[in-house]
Amino acid sequence: MVHDIQVVTEQQLRGAVHLDLAAIDCVENAFAKLASGTVVMPPVLSMALRETNAEVDVKTAYVPGLEGFAIKVSPGFFNNPSIGLPSLNGLMILFSAKTGMVEAVFLDNGYLTDVRTAAAGAVAARHLAPKSVMTAGVMGTGVQARLQLEAARLVRPFKQALVWGRSKEKAEATANDLEKCLGIPVSAESDPEKLVRESQLVVTTTPATTPILKADWLHEGLHITAMGSDQEDKNELDPACFSKADLTVCDRISQCEVMGELRSALSSGMIKETGEIAEIGQVIAGTHNGRQSESDITLCDLTGTGVQDTAIATYTRTLLAGSNVVTTITV
Amino acid sequence: MVHDIQVVTEQQLRGAVHLDLAAIDCVENAFAKLASGTVVMPPVLSMALRETNAEVDVKTAYVPGLEGFAIKVSPGFFNNPSIGLPSLNGLMILFSAKTGMVEAVFLDNGYLTDVRTAAAGAVAARHLAPKSVMTAGVMGTGVQARLQLEAARLVRPFKQALVWGRSKEKAEATANDLEKCLGIPVSAESDPEKLVRESQLVVTTTPATTPILKADWLHEGLHITAMGSDQEDKNELDPACFSKADLTVCDRISQCEVMGELRSALSSGMIKETGEIAEIGQVIAGTHNGRQSESDITLCDLTGTGVQDTAIATYTRTLLAGSNVVTTITV
Repeated sequence: MVHDIQVVTEQQLRGAVHLDLAAIDCVENAFAKLASGTVVMPPVLSMALRETNAEVDVKTAYVPGLEGFAIKVSPGFFNNPSIGLPSLNGLMILFSAKTGMVEAVFLDNGYLTDVRTAAAGAVAARHLAPKSVMTAGVMGTGVQARLQLEAARLVRPFKQALVWGRSKEKAEATANDLEKCLGIPVSAESDPEKLVRESQLVVTTTPATTPILKADWLHEGLHITAMGSDQEDKNELDPACFSKADLTVCDRISQCEVMGELRSALSSGMIKETGEIAEIGQVIAGTHNGRQSESDITLCDLTGTGVQDTAIATYTRTLLAGSNVVTTITV
Repeated sequence: MVHDIQVVTEQQLRGAVHLDLAAIDCVENAFAKLASGTVVMPPVLSMALRETNAEVDVKTAYVPGLEGFAIKVSPGFFNNPSIGLPSLNGLMILFSAKTGMVEAVFLDNGYLTDVRTAAAGAVAARHLAPKSVMTAGVMGTGVQARLQLEAARLVRPFKQALVWGRSKEKAEATANDLEKCLGIPVSAESDPEKLVRESQLVVTTTPATTPILKADWLHEGLHITAMGSDQEDKNELDPACFSKADLTVCDRISQCEVMGELRSALSSGMIKETGEIAEIGQVIAGTHNGRQSESDITLCDLTGTGVQDTAIATYTRTLLAGSNVVTTITV
């Protein structure tokens, strides 16, 4: 049977899909479904290519109620910058959840992943950060440092922001970009302790393999989202943060145990078992308590889930319905 | 950096890629690499969607020396025939093994999988069947029943063939198709025992979940390739076949233990450990003995590997180099 497949480039996707409240809501809805127990989400397929300093990850999830499911392929080739290419690229394929037929190929080079990752940060901020956030801090100076604060401000309209990075120059560039984008004062802060102490919301976005955020710096009324760790060698948070937090939330506990901050907390012995840890979907669905008071300290460990990929790909399909800009292949 | 991605339809692929000796050699070379220990092949990502009677598998492998690697997505939606759609479809994506960038999207609906699966059967026949095969038998009446005999005849020019299937009508249709395609006498055989006793090469291609081939039927000078089992509930061979065989070979032992005939042989207790089992790549590479005499009984358990997907996708790319027929997307 003849059917059409949309093939969409990164440029076309950037024109159609934006990091806005609708994208955040779409990711939030998918997380809520994850809490219902009806989602099917296999473990990440991960292929490490040591001889080329590369890694390829494949994520997917079937979310009942959504018309499609995505298979997302994320190659990271970390020697690429030496030949003038970006490290990260990849694509998402959207399949019909009813027939399994290919509906769209999103040649996004990671753009949709950027959007759904930042949207998840905003979902965490919406449900876990104190109601009043005056200052937000971000650790890291990459694309997600910018997008996480952009997304968080849609749900917590903070008045100023701080940026820390290992490179002072990059931190200043990130602060300048954010100041223009958000229209509020944003400064580079060379002391990470000061950044944490002055913020009510901190997002860590680095590829650190040893902690960059110390438990001693935690204070009442703080929410931390750690989204940098998505591999078994990464670790941004001092494991002692877990014992100082009033509430710890994961995107997916089973995945965070393998590749998130939870992995480091468990392997250090700082926590013994995960019985008190919630999943973000449970907090959204109201089946697990969220923040109990403005003075609580809360942590959210985000590793990036196939549920988000299926959510953003299905949402992208609706935005592109009837588009005459994208390439259509009839098969 | 701007680069071009080829998007190729099933029809275009059928025009360019054929089940011939070159395709068989390409799969054989990839299996030989698998034996060298330098291939990276993660376990299959498998997502079962019970409420829609569906399953999605993702396979991949990195084969040093090949310019690309494939990610192959195979959705099987088994209620599709009731709405006039095929159960199986899917696609392969070819990435550069140097940079991880997408090079081609093969919208093959499983065609390249059909070719690489039949090619693997021919590789098994080439290295394991007796030198002289007069009669070949196939059990099953689907696409692979046809393609397996077509491929096997390229390496063992048998004079006649037999087809068995649960449906006599389908067995006769398959025999007619094969007779036309191969130009030799092919008959439907209603007694599977007779088919096995009269053949020197038997290929089983069914989705059976209880054995269709009994160990009592095995005889000197027989090679059996079982390629139907690729899920943990499938089983074509009586587990006692394993103890009657002089040599058992798998495409990938670790995968056959989970989803092949080897799984049933192990779970039945018919074999206790896999130390004497070879991988096909070892036989090709000469690091494990193959058939020792024309009278040996040999078995080959094929579950389908990511190595074959990477091999056929890379080969397809070379066949399409410079093609002006396919769609090219500049990103």
